[in-house]
Amino acid sequence: MKVGDQDYRSIWLGEDGWSVEIIDQTLLPHNFATHRLTSLEQAAEAILSMRVRGAPLIGATAAYGLCLALRQDSSDHAMEQAVSMLLATRPTAVNLRWALERMTVGLSSFPESDRVQKAYEIAGSICDEDAALNESIGSHGLALLKECSVRKKSGKPLNILTHCNAGWLATVDWGTALAPIYKAHDLGMPLHIWVDETRPRNQGASLTAWELAGHGVPHSVIVDNAGGHLMQTGQVDLCITGTDRTAANGDVCNKIGTYLKALAAHDNGIPFYVALPSPTIDWQLQEGVGQIPIEERSPEEVSQISGLDQEGHLCKVNLLPQNSRAVNYGFDVTPAKYVTALITEAGICEASREGLESLFRRQAV
Amino acid sequence: MKVGDQDYRSIWLGEDGWSVEIIDQTLLPHNFATHRLTSLEQAAEAILSMRVRGAPLIGATAAYGLCLALRQDSSDHAMEQAVSMLLATRPTAVNLRWALERMTVGLSSFPESDRVQKAYEIAGSICDEDAALNESIGSHGLALLKECSVRKKSGKPLNILTHCNAGWLATVDWGTALAPIYKAHDLGMPLHIWVDETRPRNQGASLTAWELAGHGVPHSVIVDNAGGHLMQTGQVDLCITGTDRTAANGDVCNKIGTYLKALAAHDNGIPFYVALPSPTIDWQLQEGVGQIPIEERSPEEVSQISGLDQEGHLCKVNLLPQNSRAVNYGFDVTPAKYVTALITEAGICEASREGLESLFRRQAV
Repeated sequence: MKVGDQDYRSIWLGEDGWSVEIIDQTLLPHNFATHRLTSLEQAAEAILSMRVRGAPLIGATAAYGLCLALRQDSSDHAMEQAVSMLLATRPTAVNLRWALERMTVGLSSFPESDRVQKAYEIAGSICDEDAALNESIGSHGLALLKECSVRKKSGKPLNILTHCNAGWLATVDWGTALAPIYKAHDLGMPLHIWVDETRPRNQGASLTAWELAGHGVPHSVIVDNAGGHLMQTGQVDLCITGTDRTAANGDVCNKIGTYLKALAAHDNGIPFYVALPSPTIDWQLQEGVGQIPIEERSPEEVSQISGLDQEGHLCKVNLLPQNSRAVNYGFDVTPAKYVTALITEAGICEASREGLESLFRRQAV
Repeated sequence: MKVGDQDYRSIWLGEDGWSVEIIDQTLLPHNFATHRLTSLEQAAEAILSMRVRGAPLIGATAAYGLCLALRQDSSDHAMEQAVSMLLATRPTAVNLRWALERMTVGLSSFPESDRVQKAYEIAGSICDEDAALNESIGSHGLALLKECSVRKKSGKPLNILTHCNAGWLATVDWGTALAPIYKAHDLGMPLHIWVDETRPRNQGASLTAWELAGHGVPHSVIVDNAGGHLMQTGQVDLCITGTDRTAANGDVCNKIGTYLKALAAHDNGIPFYVALPSPTIDWQLQEGVGQIPIEERSPEEVSQISGLDQEGHLCKVNLLPQNSRAVNYGFDVTPAKYVTALITEAGICEASREGLESLFRRQAV
């Protein structure tokens, strides 16, 4: 998508043909800067420190991280060690495991001498396919938005609430939840997006708002507390979020707070859609509630926050009293019964085992 | 309650016997400073800028603000003008109207020459009664906490989630939602409080956490997104919040985000209690949803946040991209069906017209 006049993906190969370039998302929305990865350790650090984040982009970065590792040592042992290191960076997103399995399965039959070249091929495919999957999610989601907009008065914008960032910055391109929004906006459909700021890391306020502003989509940032009131007072037509892991029964694990918005949508009869590329489905997981490991992150993400001070410098400030501690869970699980439908690259389905199997029969076996 | 070794209320008369002292709550939790009010305008500014906040404390400050106005001019006309100015400061809390009505009804039969003295008497009574009502809420709520703690394994703390600040800083003393917690803690009951930070103004992170730390009550600050996950995973035994206005049918209007926590409690079979002194009941309001004016505050409360920088200075930082706007509603309404019970100074009742009338028969007529 566009940053200013230039087209970007969220990850790409450097001009040297082997180093990996990313957008340092920890600096957004105030500074736009790219960051070059030249080693396994740098790729792992980029995931861990959330310079890159979002389930699909984590998978793509891990794939390229393995490429960088194999450039140093392409033995089975080194490959195993690199996979372990990358898997340990983030426990919740299933795309990480999916991408690394695809890499190792694809590489294991190749002699060590050919592995580096093959690894870059597979990683490149993972990226291209992610962009294509997401564009396809966008097309299917667009049909849903068109349906909803028919019920609006002519010229009135469709009000869509989203949580966290499931835009192109969370994927290789297009995004998941935001892909239908970009498609609809490009077609001239009047839209207005309610952007949950998404504490503690504010991916909504800093990334989703930045993406939407860059693309010219009308939006308003709200605190995470506000969505219930907006839904109760008729100011939301539908919700769309992404998911970091989807259980085989349609339960979705996404950024902490998603569950609360799904409850409010259910209570007010508002559709709550979840957009996902199929690599986000964990077919081994029969249900999500209580079964998905929920990452507990540093309390400092709650007790401190960064922003621009009055001189325009990035500044981190402390929010808590000295003697108070904080606790920081990264994700929650929304039971399938609160999800109106899943929007995938293969079409739209009920959030249930039957729904998912109707679209992805082969994987479910 | 205690600040260090000294006992404080949240509002009191200065040594001169007429000026009004408050704690400047906009500086907490980082700086503790008192602030002196000597005029109607200063009292209105203190409410508007949220140096004082919390429905009961707003009422008490408005009462003293009227005293300060009458010192300048005790005519009927001046009194009417002062009441209008004070009423306009905050539209949602009903205690403001209640306190000013009590003042004007009490004063109207007095000659102008006696009004100032009488005004201070009534304002003093409003404060003393608020403290007494809240202590009584604490005693009734304590019985509930004792009941809940019986179901816990011996020695395991009772986990209570609260939203915003309904502690002694929101009232004249004791607090509403926190009064039972202080009573239980003082009796040695093991407790742990989950404190919602309560964006945008972070009254939980800055005021509730500060109060609890000051009183030695174990607590953890969480982002507003976290409560659903904690409830779903068995980490919350009950919720208690305050309310800024309670409709005659038991609907409660409280800080934005309260409704979302009530939904999560309902979904997980966790009791959700609301604590209130009876002046918070708006008997004229038949129901709350769609009927209570919801204050829309400055978008800067969402786009900017204050904290201590690394040198220990208070610093305000901007969180949003340049081209993004924010929207900021202050309150939401939780339908009575999601409120397990109301804890009042007169006892505990169902959140319904029948429940409220069983405790407050006379007012309901």
